[in-house]
Amino acid sequence: MTVDQTATATDPSGGRPVVPTRSSHRPLGSGEIAFVAGFWAHLQSTNAAATLEHCEQWMERLGWLANLDHAADGTTGIERPGWSFSDSEVYKLIEAMSWEFGRSGDPAIDAAIRRLTARVGRAQDSDGYLNTYYGHPQRPPRYSDLETGHELYCAGHLLQAAVARLRTAGPDELVEIARRAADHVCDMFGPDGLQGIGGHPEIELGLVEFGRAVDESRYVEQARLFLDRRGHGRLGEIPFGPAYFQDDVPIRDAATWRGHAVRALYLSAAAVDVATEYDDVDLLAAVQRQWTASVARRTYITGGMGSRHQDESFGEDWELPADRAYCETCAGVASIMVSWRLYLATGDVRYADLIERTSFNIVATSPRSDGRAFFYANPLHQRVAGNAPDEDTVSPRAASSTRAPWFDVSCCPTNVARTLASWHTYAASVGERELTLLQYGSARVETTLGDGRAIGVTVDTTYPRGGTVTVSLDDPPAGALALRLRVPSWADGAVLDEGGRRRAVEPGLAVVDREFTPGEEIRLHLPMSPRFTWPDPRIDAVRGCVAVERGPLVYCLESIDLPDGVELDGIAVDPASQPVLRDHDRVEVQGRVLASGSGDANGDAPWPYQALAGSPDGASAIPLLLHPYHQWAERGPTAMRVWLPTPQPTTPR
Amino acid sequence: MTVDQTATATDPSGGRPVVPTRSSHRPLGSGEIAFVAGFWAHLQSTNAAATLEHCEQWMERLGWLANLDHAADGTTGIERPGWSFSDSEVYKLIEAMSWEFGRSGDPAIDAAIRRLTARVGRAQDSDGYLNTYYGHPQRPPRYSDLETGHELYCAGHLLQAAVARLRTAGPDELVEIARRAADHVCDMFGPDGLQGIGGHPEIELGLVEFGRAVDESRYVEQARLFLDRRGHGRLGEIPFGPAYFQDDVPIRDAATWRGHAVRALYLSAAAVDVATEYDDVDLLAAVQRQWTASVARRTYITGGMGSRHQDESFGEDWELPADRAYCETCAGVASIMVSWRLYLATGDVRYADLIERTSFNIVATSPRSDGRAFFYANPLHQRVAGNAPDEDTVSPRAASSTRAPWFDVSCCPTNVARTLASWHTYAASVGERELTLLQYGSARVETTLGDGRAIGVTVDTTYPRGGTVTVSLDDPPAGALALRLRVPSWADGAVLDEGGRRRAVEPGLAVVDREFTPGEEIRLHLPMSPRFTWPDPRIDAVRGCVAVERGPLVYCLESIDLPDGVELDGIAVDPASQPVLRDHDRVEVQGRVLASGSGDANGDAPWPYQALAGSPDGASAIPLLLHPYHQWAERGPTAMRVWLPTPQPTTPR
Repeated sequence: MTVDQTATATDPSGGRPVVPTRSSHRPLGSGEIAFVAGFWAHLQSTNAAATLEHCEQWMERLGWLANLDHAADGTTGIERPGWSFSDSEVYKLIEAMSWEFGRSGDPAIDAAIRRLTARVGRAQDSDGYLNTYYGHPQRPPRYSDLETGHELYCAGHLLQAAVARLRTAGPDELVEIARRAADHVCDMFGPDGLQGIGGHPEIELGLVEFGRAVDESRYVEQARLFLDRRGHGRLGEIPFGPAYFQDDVPIRDAATWRGHAVRALYLSAAAVDVATEYDDVDLLAAVQRQWTASVARRTYITGGMGSRHQDESFGEDWELPADRAYCETCAGVASIMVSWRLYLATGDVRYADLIERTSFNIVATSPRSDGRAFFYANPLHQRVAGNAPDEDTVSPRAASSTRAPWFDVSCCPTNVARTLASWHTYAASVGERELTLLQYGSARVETTLGDGRAIGVTVDTTYPRGGTVTVSLDDPPAGALALRLRVPSWADGAVLDEGGRRRAVEPGLAVVDREFTPGEEIRLHLPMSPRFTWPDPRIDAVRGCVAVERGPLVYCLESIDLPDGVELDGIAVDPASQPVLRDHDRVEVQGRVLASGSGDANGDAPWPYQALAGSPDGASAIPLLLHPYHQWAERGPTAMRVWLPTPQPTTPR
Repeated sequence: MTVDQTATATDPSGGRPVVPTRSSHRPLGSGEIAFVAGFWAHLQSTNAAATLEHCEQWMERLGWLANLDHAADGTTGIERPGWSFSDSEVYKLIEAMSWEFGRSGDPAIDAAIRRLTARVGRAQDSDGYLNTYYGHPQRPPRYSDLETGHELYCAGHLLQAAVARLRTAGPDELVEIARRAADHVCDMFGPDGLQGIGGHPEIELGLVEFGRAVDESRYVEQARLFLDRRGHGRLGEIPFGPAYFQDDVPIRDAATWRGHAVRALYLSAAAVDVATEYDDVDLLAAVQRQWTASVARRTYITGGMGSRHQDESFGEDWELPADRAYCETCAGVASIMVSWRLYLATGDVRYADLIERTSFNIVATSPRSDGRAFFYANPLHQRVAGNAPDEDTVSPRAASSTRAPWFDVSCCPTNVARTLASWHTYAASVGERELTLLQYGSARVETTLGDGRAIGVTVDTTYPRGGTVTVSLDDPPAGALALRLRVPSWADGAVLDEGGRRRAVEPGLAVVDREFTPGEEIRLHLPMSPRFTWPDPRIDAVRGCVAVERGPLVYCLESIDLPDGVELDGIAVDPASQPVLRDHDRVEVQGRVLASGSGDANGDAPWPYQALAGSPDGASAIPLLLHPYHQWAERGPTAMRVWLPTPQPTTPR
């Protein structure tokens, strides 16, 4: 079933990042759904109260905003603060502010957007070109480095910022700036123009969505052109090879995600958009195939993607090291972008499953609880606790043992900010006569079904602390409604309660399709007992290990929770025991002390490879207290592991 | 016991890389020991017949040699082929040629050395400065980038080349060039000069050994200065941090090796040299401590060092991933350099144990059997077979699934060449009244004990194919001799046979201390049955896996040896079975097919983390045939693994 939607300049929903011209389910906007309490409402509040201002202050301090003024005033020079993509951080911040304005209507945020927009506008050249790194006095010429120059990437983020502004506040100067920039890109790179592509996909996403937002098919067509050009070795050679920026194989022909993870995922998200606009079933199927293959073999239990530090890339199948997991925060954001578009295109809730997993364990893990420091990489094992972060220092990007206030390459903070500010719009969708709840939190939903009937429901839950989700149909539509509740893939044993009538529901969708009486309550009970989870035996890096999960949350063991003298690498867990929920969402498992741990190097064998297997199964049992992974390092730098070793046989069996 | 040795301009031994002023054991030179047949003799022949010429041809073809001519002729320009350290490859080649000339006396090699020396000499500035990258028309100024510029590094390799030439052919033009270069370095960086250090240690090694060779203490003192300056953050900031080039902690205070592996190991080798020259017991103890800690926790079973691709560095303790093991060939060479110096300083044969392991499994693994292609990285697990090498293409350095003819950063081929050409000099040493055989191969030894008595022995063995080493005392000295034979650390059950009297000998040294009759034979029987070896339980990456070794050789399983339809990642070995030696040095172990392997993605679970442990223990048993790791990919690109999974429990225990 397809809901036709007309692209409009101002979005009556209150703003949504993705508004496909055709989709199986219509996404809700900021005016239709709001989290009122709980996990995500709290993160959104912190984002609004701290992170947005934090990002603006750092960009002002480092001169990334002043770069705009220098471009406007003709005062650029050989030296310029920031990487070639620093403009994009300004645009991502404006996008984040716009979604937040759509959510809260805070006039101070509106003022900040106008302030930033004015500086952006002054930096734009008369022909629409807008970039502070290239094409100015003493700067490299425009489009002189398509491989790594990020001009088109920056333009794409400008367009996404304008989409957010347009849909949450209506047309304004930013939208006009974006229109001129989009026209410039189409003029330069159109069918008769430069036949190049950008090394970092993003322009494609911006062009499609901006084209949808302002109803301009030329922009969508340009995105299609960029996609079709890619995969034919059009970009110049780089040491990492063409797979790094997905120029090795056309996206239609690729079997799996590979190369730089954020690049691969932005490209795939844009491909779903283009496939949707052109009803290109082959292209859609290609991305679905890549999603399936990559989720089965190249994704961490946290939802994290990208195994390698060296080139921030996917590894080979099953190459998922816990200790050197890169799992860039931005790749988590990008994964959610792909999955959301695939859900809208197909209605398959397994995409929403991955969104939930990635949101809780990557996106929510990155920001510190005060919203002023961030993880760039999200490894699943930290061998050595690092140093406490310096609140006043820019960090190299992959320093991962503590969250850092800002990065030399600082893509993650603004990506977290724009995702959190719009996260409620991923929580539900409507069809012709369906309301689907995809993500759970205490929320108010007031929307309109595809057939025009209004509906209002209230969701009440402490999820993911508790597993009961109560949906009150305060204002049900007249006539039958298909109320659909996602049952997560991990939720074996879920129960649906319709006024006392309880029935087991399987992972997938629990559907109640009938007339509802006003005030009627439907309850979904999700099993929230902590559980052990085992890896596929082909994931070499975590063979013989087990993880602990509870609901959508992955857990971890931190060194700070071990008794004195017990080292993190000297313990194992007893897989025959059962993990038990303790207070403050902590989980206890039964462990054993296997070796003296790294603290005592004197006990080491001189050579760590011996004729006897394993280590003695120490007599000392020890309870181990685990925290949700997203709380890692909130109490200071720690050594940490998600995957917990189980005792290995001590003699060959 | 210390053998005093006077540094002389021409080495009567026939040439040795390291001639400490003081040492517990005197190393033999090319004139005192020769391999006459077997494993190392064969590699040395191939090195002489193919690799030396191969390296010279590539450097000519790529313009790295012509860089010398341009510097001489004043025709340098903005463009220049090769990295800033390409001069060092010329010097390493000359060093390799010099050791080979010392070994064989081949006049064609002598002519090649003279040819290259003439071009090097023309490129030297009048003040002794010699570098084709810096300090010429349109080139960056001298010493403008000590962090990554490699000027001092190149100078160090020039000095090492001159040492080899001096000790194998006597003083010539190369020695004078080196003397001028060394004087220039001392003038520039002496106590009253620039207080800098080079980002890549090497100058220290060159200065000490050249100082020993030409009996010039100023050079040794300059090396000591460079060492003392390091570790105080004197070098500028780089993204990898100061540990990358060991400028984080003074070498006296460091607990373990860290940062870039080759840098760390060259520095430590130089530190042993300086400690020896100044009788600095604290400095020597510091390197011994770092060796012990790093061998116990940061070294692969192959002897490989350096876990990370990103910065070619050591990882944390126990961070030893098989699939992304970097194990740069040059780090193997450098590890041998450190261990050899530590053996000479201490007489402890565990250093010779590591030399043997690293030589067979890293140095001998790198070159293809024809000597014209090389591994740069030496991983212990290759998930996907790469493409066959293009014999005409320069490879990016870390392409590791096949050996490549040359690299963009081509440090490894010449490092292999100089190591193989001098490898026999690591095989034995003499003391006052001791002859110690450290490495085994069919060889002829004719040398002089510390007390002046001549001795001649013949060694006959097929080692490492067979385990019997026969030492014939053709020309024993008059009076008592301590004949000492190294018993490798893996050789539990070794037996020494003195004319039919057999006795068990422990790993370490088997000593026969008495008078010998001419022609008397002593036999060492080393146990060469293949064996399983298990990793320390703290090495996460290979938990639940076992390796197969035989003698000093690590074995590996290659995909080419699996039956059709069986994938490398779908098998496990039965650790209760016994590995069995088959023909052609192959070893058979009993395996099981656990999963369908990566070839059949359709059988994958959609999510690879499940509530049940392990995979079903397949009924199909399968014999698995392993080859020595050094033969990996000799039959074409393959997937490969050293560490073989054992079946994991399928339900929680």
